[in-house]
Amino acid sequence: MEAVQSSVDMIWVMLGAMLVFFMHAGFAMVETGFTRSKNTLNILMKNLITVSLGSILYFIIGFALMFGTSAFGLIGTEGFAMLGREDVGFFVFQAVFAATCATIISGAVAERMNLGAYILLTVAMTAIIYPIVGHWVWGGGWLAEIGFIDFAGSTVVHLTGAVAAFVTAWKIGPRIGKYSGKIVNSIPGHNIPLGALGVFILWLGWFGFNGGSTLAADPALVPPVIANTLLAASAGVLATAGYTRLRYGRIDPSLTLNGALGGLVGITAGAANVSFIGAIAIGLIAGIIMTEAIHLLDTKIRIDDPVGAISVHGIAGIWGTLAIGLFDTSGGLLYGGGAEILGIQTLGVLAVVAWTAAATGLGLLLIGTIVPLRVSAEDEESGLDFAEHGSQAYSMQGVLKGNSSTPETSFAHRLNQLGDDPEVQKS
Amino acid sequence: MEAVQSSVDMIWVMLGAMLVFFMHAGFAMVETGFTRSKNTLNILMKNLITVSLGSILYFIIGFALMFGTSAFGLIGTEGFAMLGREDVGFFVFQAVFAATCATIISGAVAERMNLGAYILLTVAMTAIIYPIVGHWVWGGGWLAEIGFIDFAGSTVVHLTGAVAAFVTAWKIGPRIGKYSGKIVNSIPGHNIPLGALGVFILWLGWFGFNGGSTLAADPALVPPVIANTLLAASAGVLATAGYTRLRYGRIDPSLTLNGALGGLVGITAGAANVSFIGAIAIGLIAGIIMTEAIHLLDTKIRIDDPVGAISVHGIAGIWGTLAIGLFDTSGGLLYGGGAEILGIQTLGVLAVVAWTAAATGLGLLLIGTIVPLRVSAEDEESGLDFAEHGSQAYSMQGVLKGNSSTPETSFAHRLNQLGDDPEVQKS
Amino acid sequence: MEAVQSSVDMIWVMLGAMLVFFMHAGFAMVETGFTRSKNTLNILMKNLITVSLGSILYFIIGFALMFGTSAFGLIGTEGFAMLGREDVGFFVFQAVFAATCATIISGAVAERMNLGAYILLTVAMTAIIYPIVGHWVWGGGWLAEIGFIDFAGSTVVHLTGAVAAFVTAWKIGPRIGKYSGKIVNSIPGHNIPLGALGVFILWLGWFGFNGGSTLAADPALVPPVIANTLLAASAGVLATAGYTRLRYGRIDPSLTLNGALGGLVGITAGAANVSFIGAIAIGLIAGIIMTEAIHLLDTKIRIDDPVGAISVHGIAGIWGTLAIGLFDTSGGLLYGGGAEILGIQTLGVLAVVAWTAAATGLGLLLIGTIVPLRVSAEDEESGLDFAEHGSQAYSMQGVLKGNSSTPETSFAHRLNQLGDDPEVQKS
Repeated sequence: MEAVQSSVDMIWVMLGAMLVFFMHAGFAMVETGFTRSKNTLNILMKNLITVSLGSILYFIIGFALMFGTSAFGLIGTEGFAMLGREDVGFFVFQAVFAATCATIISGAVAERMNLGAYILLTVAMTAIIYPIVGHWVWGGGWLAEIGFIDFAGSTVVHLTGAVAAFVTAWKIGPRIGKYSGKIVNSIPGHNIPLGALGVFILWLGWFGFNGGSTLAADPALVPPVIANTLLAASAGVLATAGYTRLRYGRIDPSLTLNGALGGLVGITAGAANVSFIGAIAIGLIAGIIMTEAIHLLDTKIRIDDPVGAISVHGIAGIWGTLAIGLFDTSGGLLYGGGAEILGIQTLGVLAVVAWTAAATGLGLLLIGTIVPLRVSAEDEESGLDFAEHGSQAYSMQGVLKGNSSTPETSFAHRLNQLGDDPEVQKS
Repeated sequence: MEAVQSSVDMIWVMLGAMLVFFMHAGFAMVETGFTRSKNTLNILMKNLITVSLGSILYFIIGFALMFGTSAFGLIGTEGFAMLGREDVGFFVFQAVFAATCATIISGAVAERMNLGAYILLTVAMTAIIYPIVGHWVWGGGWLAEIGFIDFAGSTVVHLTGAVAAFVTAWKIGPRIGKYSGKIVNSIPGHNIPLGALGVFILWLGWFGFNGGSTLAADPALVPPVIANTLLAASAGVLATAGYTRLRYGRIDPSLTLNGALGGLVGITAGAANVSFIGAIAIGLIAGIIMTEAIHLLDTKIRIDDPVGAISVHGIAGIWGTLAIGLFDTSGGLLYGGGAEILGIQTLGVLAVVAWTAAATGLGLLLIGTIVPLRVSAEDEESGLDFAEHGSQAYSMQGVLKGNSSTPETSFAHRLNQLGDDPEVQKS
Repeated sequence: MEAVQSSVDMIWVMLGAMLVFFMHAGFAMVETGFTRSKNTLNILMKNLITVSLGSILYFIIGFALMFGTSAFGLIGTEGFAMLGREDVGFFVFQAVFAATCATIISGAVAERMNLGAYILLTVAMTAIIYPIVGHWVWGGGWLAEIGFIDFAGSTVVHLTGAVAAFVTAWKIGPRIGKYSGKIVNSIPGHNIPLGALGVFILWLGWFGFNGGSTLAADPALVPPVIANTLLAASAGVLATAGYTRLRYGRIDPSLTLNGALGGLVGITAGAANVSFIGAIAIGLIAGIIMTEAIHLLDTKIRIDDPVGAISVHGIAGIWGTLAIGLFDTSGGLLYGGGAEILGIQTLGVLAVVAWTAAATGLGLLLIGTIVPLRVSAEDEESGLDFAEHGSQAYSMQGVLKGNSSTPETSFAHRLNQLGDDPEVQKS
C-alpha cells in the first residue's frame, strides 16, 4: 500500500512539475504581448534559454546548494549533479521552480538588456542566488528554523525574482523614450491577446505551483490549496478591474490581467494556511496594491518595468508573505493570534530582499566587466530582433495584401471592390 | 486503502478542474479570434471577468443553490460560502463548470453588448440561473428523480448557456452592418490561428470536463469516457469538413473548427452511456446539424451570433441530450429499448429551455433598468476597445516596417512615411 | 489494492494521452507560425483533420494492425474497431500517438500540397504505414523480438513521420520561389511567437509522450524519464543557441526553437535507458546535428521543408535511436557494453526507413492517380487559404488604423508607401 501511495504522490508532483514548466510558456506570452513587436524574438529567446539553462544549472549546482546537507543553515553542500540523490521527482519539481524565479527578471529588463548579460545573470540566479534563498526557507536553513512560513514561494520564488528584477532594471535604466524630462510616456504592448493567453496559462500553471507544493496527494490538503488559488486569483481580477474603473474611469485590460497574477502571487505563501475568505481578502488587496505599485514605480520612482513584473511579483509577494501574519487560521492576528508570525514573516522578507539585492548588485558588477549590460542605443531603436537575431517576429504581408502577390490586384483594389468597410463582405 | 483511493480520486477530480479552468483560455481565444480586432480587449476582459466573478459568486451562492439540501426538488438551501461543507475538491470542479456555462454567452453577444450589463448577467447566471438547472439534474432535483440523463452537461452547462445567449443576442439585436435590408453580411474574425488554438485548448479541456465528471478515477469508466470524447470530436470535425466541402465547395475553416466543438458538446451528455460507434455517430450528426443551425440562425432567424455559440452549444447540446434516447447501450431506441428515455430527455430539454429563457429574459429586463444593454452606435463603430478601455489590442508597426536588409528603406525611413512614431504615446 | 493501483496507472496513462493530444495544438502553432500568412487556414485545417481522421482510422484499423495477434511478427490481425478489446485507455494513448506521427508530414509539405492528397496520405499513414512500424517494435513484432529499443518512439513515431515527410516533400518539389538557379531563398515564417508557443506546448506534451510511455505510474521509473526529457530538451536549446551563435554570429530564433524539439526527439528512444548526463549529451548533440541537417537539406539536397520537420524528427530521431547503443546504462558502448545494441538499433532504423520510404512512395503513386499531389502554381501564388478555403486567416485592419476613425489615412494609402513584397528574401 505504501508503494501505491508513493505512485499517487509521484503522479501529483509530476503533474505539478509539468504545470510549472508550462508557466514558462505563460511568461513568454505575457512578456511578448506586453512589449513591442521589434523586440519579440529577443524576449522569446530569453524565456526559452532561461528555462533551459536554469534546468541544467539547477541540476548541476542549484539543487545541491538548496537541498544538500546544510552548512550553518546558510547553504547546502552536497548532491551536485544529483550524485547520491534518489529524489528525482522532487528535483524535477524544484528545477522548474528555479527557472520560474529567474524568468521574472526577463520581463522587467525587456527591450534593452543585452542578451549575453541576461544569460550570465540567469546563471547567477539559478545556480546561486535563488538556491540560497530556497535553502534558508525550504532546505532546512535558518529561516525555516525560526518558523518562517512560505508555502509555495511568494517570497522564495516571486520576491527573489522581483528584487533581482528591480536591481537590474534600476541598474540598466529605462528604455529610450520612456521618460522625456517630466513626461512619462506609455509604451503599449503589441499583442495583448497573446499576453492574455499567457495569463491564463500562468493561472493554470499556478494550480501546479501551489498544489504541487504539498508534495503529496493529500486529499485533505490539496483541494483547499487549489480552491484558495482559484479564489485569490479571481479576487485579484475583480479588485483590479473595479479599482481601475474607479480610479481611471475604465477597466484597464493590462492591469486587470496583471491583477490575476497579483492575486496568485499573493496567495502563494499562505495557500495552505488561510481560509477561503482569507484567500479572497488576500487576492483583493493584492490587486489594489499591485495597481498602485505599478503606478508609483512607473511615475515616481521611475523604474521602467515593461510588464509590471516588479510590482506583480515583488509587492504582491511581500503582501502575500506578510498576510499570513494576519490570516493564518492557527495564529494570525485576525484569528486571535499575536504579532509573532507577522514579525517572523517581516524578518524573512527583509533578509531575502537584502541578500538578493546585494547578490544581484554584485553579480551585475561582475557581469558588467565581461559584457555590456545594455544594448547600444542604435540597436535599441532598431529593435533587438534585428540587432541581436537579424530577423523579425512577424511577416504578415498576407494580412494586408490579402492573398495577392501581383501589385495591381492589391488590397487597395480589393478594398475598392468591397466598398468602404473591408470587414463587412457579402456572404 | 480507502485513504489511498481517496487520494487517487482527488487527483483525478483536481486534474479535471484544472483542465476545465483552462477551457476559459480556449473560450477567450476562440471568441477573440472569431471577432474583429477593434473589440479584442473587451472580449478578453469579458472572459477573464466571467471566470473570476463566476468562481467567487458560485462559492458564495451558486454551490449552495445547486448542491444544498433540496427544497421540493427545485433549489438547494444551504452551504453558502461553503459553510458546513467539506467537499472542497468537488466545489472547485463545479465552480469552473459554472463559469463555463456563463462564458458561452460572451461569444454570442460580442462586439456590441455593454460590459456593465454583461457583468450583471454573469452574476445572474453563475449565482442563480445555472445553479438551479444544476440542482434539478445533478443536485438531486426533480429531473434527477425522473431519470433524466446528462452525464457531463450537454444540457446543464451548454444548453443553459446557449439559451441565455440566444435570448440576450435576440434582445440586444445584431451588430451594426450585419444585416442591410435583405442582404446578410459576413463579418469575418480577425485572427483564426488564435481561434484554432482556442479550439484545441477547449478539446483538451473537454477531456477533463467529461472525464472528471466521473468524480472518481474508475479504471472501467474513465477510459471509455475519454475515448468517446476523442472519437465524437473527431467525427464532428470530419462531418463538418466533409459537409461544408459538399455544400459550399470548400472545407470551411471556421465551421470545421466549430465542428470539433459541436462533436464535443454532443457527446457530453452521453459520454458514459454510449458505445464508441455511438459516439462517432453522435459527433457526425452534431457536426452537420450545427452547420445547418448556424446558417439558419444567421440568415433566416437573423440572430447575430459572431462565434456560432448558440448553435454549437445549444443545438448540439439538445442533440447530445436526445441522442441518449437513441444510443444508450442499456435502453436506447437503437439498442432495443423503448421511447421512454427519449421522452424523459425531451422533457428535460424543454424544462431547461423554458426556465433559462424566462429567467434570462427577466434578468435582462431588470439589468436594462440599471445600465444600457448595448453600447452606443458610435462606440460600436469605433470599437469597444477604444470606447470601453481607451486602448487597443495590437500595435504591430514592426510588422510593416520589417527587417529589410536594404538600409535605404530602413525602419526610420518607413516610420517617416507612416507619420509620427505611434509606438510611443503620452500616457 | 490491485484495483487502486489500476486506478493510479489509468490516471497516469490518461494524463499522458491528454498531453499527447495537446501536442497537436503545438504542431499546429509551430507549422502556422513558421509558414506564410497566406497559407495559414490550410495548415490549421491539415492539423485539425489529421488528429481527427487519424483517431478514427486508428480506432477502426490501425490499432488492430499494431497490437492485434501477430502474423509472422509483421502485422497484427484482430481487434478492428476495438472488437474484443478491453484496453481502452491504452487505445486512447496509442491513437493520439498515431496522429502525431502523421502530422509531422504536414509541416514539411506545407504551402503547396493539395489538401485532398494530404488527407489520403494521412489515411495511409494512420491506418497502415505507422501501425505496421508500431507492430514491429511495440506490438511484439520482429524488431521487438531481436531486442530493438525504442522507449517512446524516436524511430516508431518521429523517424517514420520524417521519412514519409521526406519522400513526400521530395516528390512534390519545393515551393515556388524557394530555389532560383543557384540561389537558395529563405522564406521566413509569419508569426514566430505563435511558433514559440507551439514549441512550449510540444515540450509540455512530450512529458506525457515519454512519461506516459511507461504505461504505469512506477515511482522509480517515471521521474527519471521526466527528468531526462527536461534535461535533453534544455540541452538541445543551449546547443542550438550556442552553435548558431558560433556559426552564424547570432542566436537564431527559429533554429533554437527547433533545438528544443531536436533534444526531445533525441531523448524519446532512450528516456528510460540513459543517465541524466547521457540525456544532456544526447540533447546537446541532437541540437547540433539537427542544425547542420537543416542547412544541408535546405541548401545541398534541396528538399524544401518549411518548418524543418525532416531534420528535427528524422535526423534527431535516428540519433536518439542509435544513441542508446552508446549511452544505455546497462549495455551501451560508453558504459562498458559491446556494439551489439548499436547494431540492433542500426538495423531497426534501416528497416523502418526502408519500409516507410517504400510504402509512402507507393502510396503517393496511388494517390497521384486520384488527385493532384500539388496545388496549381496560380493557387500557390495566391495562397492556399484563398484557393482552397476562399478566406484568409487574419483581418487586422484595426491594427493598422489603430483607433483612427479618419478614413483618409487608409490602408491602401499606407500600402502604396510600403512598396514591394518583402516576404521572399535572399538568404
